[in-house]
Amino acid sequence: MRSRPTLESVARQAAVSRQTVSNVLNAPHLVHPTTIERVRRVIDEVGYRPHGAARQLRTRRSHTVGLRLQPSDGINGDILDRFLHALTQTAQDHGYRVLLFTAADDDLEIARYSELLDTVEIDAFVLTSTHHDDPRTRWLALRGVPFVTFGRPWDPAGEKDGGHAWVDVDGASGTRAATDHLRALGHRRIAFLGWPDGSDTGDDRRAGWRAGMTAAGIPAAEIASLDVGVPDDIEMAVAAARRLLRESAPTAFVCVSDTLAVGVLAATRSIPPLRENSAGESEQPRGAVAVVGFDDTPVARTIGLTSVSQPVTEAAKRAFLLLLDQLGRIGSPGTGRHVLLDPTLVVRRTSPRPDQQTQPQNPT
Amino acid sequence: MRSRPTLESVARQAAVSRQTVSNVLNAPHLVHPTTIERVRRVIDEVGYRPHGAARQLRTRRSHTVGLRLQPSDGINGDILDRFLHALTQTAQDHGYRVLLFTAADDDLEIARYSELLDTVEIDAFVLTSTHHDDPRTRWLALRGVPFVTFGRPWDPAGEKDGGHAWVDVDGASGTRAATDHLRALGHRRIAFLGWPDGSDTGDDRRAGWRAGMTAAGIPAAEIASLDVGVPDDIEMAVAAARRLLRESAPTAFVCVSDTLAVGVLAATRSIPPLRENSAGESEQPRGAVAVVGFDDTPVARTIGLTSVSQPVTEAAKRAFLLLLDQLGRIGSPGTGRHVLLDPTLVVRRTSPRPDQQTQPQNPT
Repeated sequence: MRSRPTLESVARQAAVSRQTVSNVLNAPHLVHPTTIERVRRVIDEVGYRPHGAARQLRTRRSHTVGLRLQPSDGINGDILDRFLHALTQTAQDHGYRVLLFTAADDDLEIARYSELLDTVEIDAFVLTSTHHDDPRTRWLALRGVPFVTFGRPWDPAGEKDGGHAWVDVDGASGTRAATDHLRALGHRRIAFLGWPDGSDTGDDRRAGWRAGMTAAGIPAAEIASLDVGVPDDIEMAVAAARRLLRESAPTAFVCVSDTLAVGVLAATRSIPPLRENSAGESEQPRGAVAVVGFDDTPVARTIGLTSVSQPVTEAAKRAFLLLLDQLGRIGSPGTGRHVLLDPTLVVRRTSPRPDQQTQPQNPT
Repeated sequence: MRSRPTLESVARQAAVSRQTVSNVLNAPHLVHPTTIERVRRVIDEVGYRPHGAARQLRTRRSHTVGLRLQPSDGINGDILDRFLHALTQTAQDHGYRVLLFTAADDDLEIARYSELLDTVEIDAFVLTSTHHDDPRTRWLALRGVPFVTFGRPWDPAGEKDGGHAWVDVDGASGTRAATDHLRALGHRRIAFLGWPDGSDTGDDRRAGWRAGMTAAGIPAAEIASLDVGVPDDIEMAVAAARRLLRESAPTAFVCVSDTLAVGVLAATRSIPPLRENSAGESEQPRGAVAVVGFDDTPVARTIGLTSVSQPVTEAAKRAFLLLLDQLGRIGSPGTGRHVLLDPTLVVRRTSPRPDQQTQPQNPT
């Protein structure tokens, strides 16, 4: 019995790599014309039919969506893992599976798309960790492959380039709510401990804090003196918080992540007690700065850290429905749909009213 | 163009459900003989060839392994997510992908296997959360589907039934190391806060503590008085720890999970400070009980909880290699291989020497 021609057998016969065969099919501009000619001749001779082409003819779907699993990331890694759980469950509820792969960067992620479309049956992709000038969405849109992103196309140009389907959480609205919450508690000098400039997600969260401070009438120079960016690392946050406290004397911190918030707590006090004491006090040291984190991780829930919570399950559900929309309308140009969800502030013991710290609530 | 026959079209033509067609192919003992006959006639007529059967004829592999994603589980959920990350990366390094699905219980997981083997190309399965009398491994072994489990076949009979490939972490060795560590610090009345009897993993961890206590010459009645099981919940742990402290006066706790360890900390003191103070002290309240958790979660790393760390990345690598072994030897009976890895104890501030609590380390 002669076996069915495959990407591998075509590559062997044309004396090129699998990647080259894949490029001939999906990205011919990357391949030398004489190589294209040689590979195409072999493809015709052996009658190879890539899955990607076969898919156009089929009405049956593989009921599989692909997702690149991002490296997990300590305290914050939790959020993408929660998205994955919710996505897999939603997919299963609709009779779909999630195919996981990894890639070191965007270009390798694109190489995986190409390889997967050629070698396995896959209906669509879900992308996370979008950023401005994202080559992945361009690549998929050009080839008409259905996809949705968890994350906005941060580039306004990217938006014009296709207006692909996306779901995101409004980070600025979350940090704005945190800032307003701290203002309502009586704080005025509220610092922002963010990531360095240039992170789309980080800059968005910074913008919400800045808008809240501006709306509160804080002068621009004072706002600037309360704004610091460091990498997402507890020890870096400890050092940055100490410097800020020395130089700008904030009474509260809005942090871009729970990791950085834990660093602020470490710089300013012991981790607060897990439970209130018998008098109902929160046992905050008098004058301790208030701290708000972002992502409502298990660490935040355990140590009583106020934090901004992303509706990850809802995001995954909406993202999958946007995919189903596309899969139902084969051949129609994806008009795209965009979903921006609001996060919620979960208030815990690290953001008490300044006048309530160490004051018994029930003086009887 | 007439479309290729599928499981669906066979089911429609035979007027049965997809599951019934799948059962005829994979579990005919579940189907009435007259139904089997009708379905087989349709299969022959339309020339349907299930992927599972086709796979026997192919030499090409799909390079896809299937995994049921377990529900995530708060503080402890971290461990299976870390296994998934490591497995996906190892798979990718070998040119494989991981296909995720969900299922509410073992029987539904088996139904998914059956469906996946019939409808998509899949080479093998990875199973987690094994338990005694596990029907999943029996099902796969009977059908000759390659698989490996992260977790032992807890049933001795299961072991005899096939001796399938597995990788596990020696939980008893971890709790034994924790117990010996606390003994070396001078503790004698060391409690075990575990899960209720009947959890294979939990009972294994309890056995390590018990062996350490017995080796230390603690009388059996005293050991029994220090042994408590509760569900994996912080509040339940708080209540259980208080009761134990009142009734049995332990000076240290070995806990079956970081979740329960956090409950013990909440019952006995504030969460310890993140960083040592300037004098190098650990600021443990004098006489605070020592606490050891299990799984070295981000929560443990953040709050300074001593915890048993599972070598999850190594487990995922070894598991995948055991799969590759099987996939390389098509047709040869799987002789199985078993890998039991040792965890390591990560000592942090919740298990200080009793005589060092609140004593400055550098009296100069």
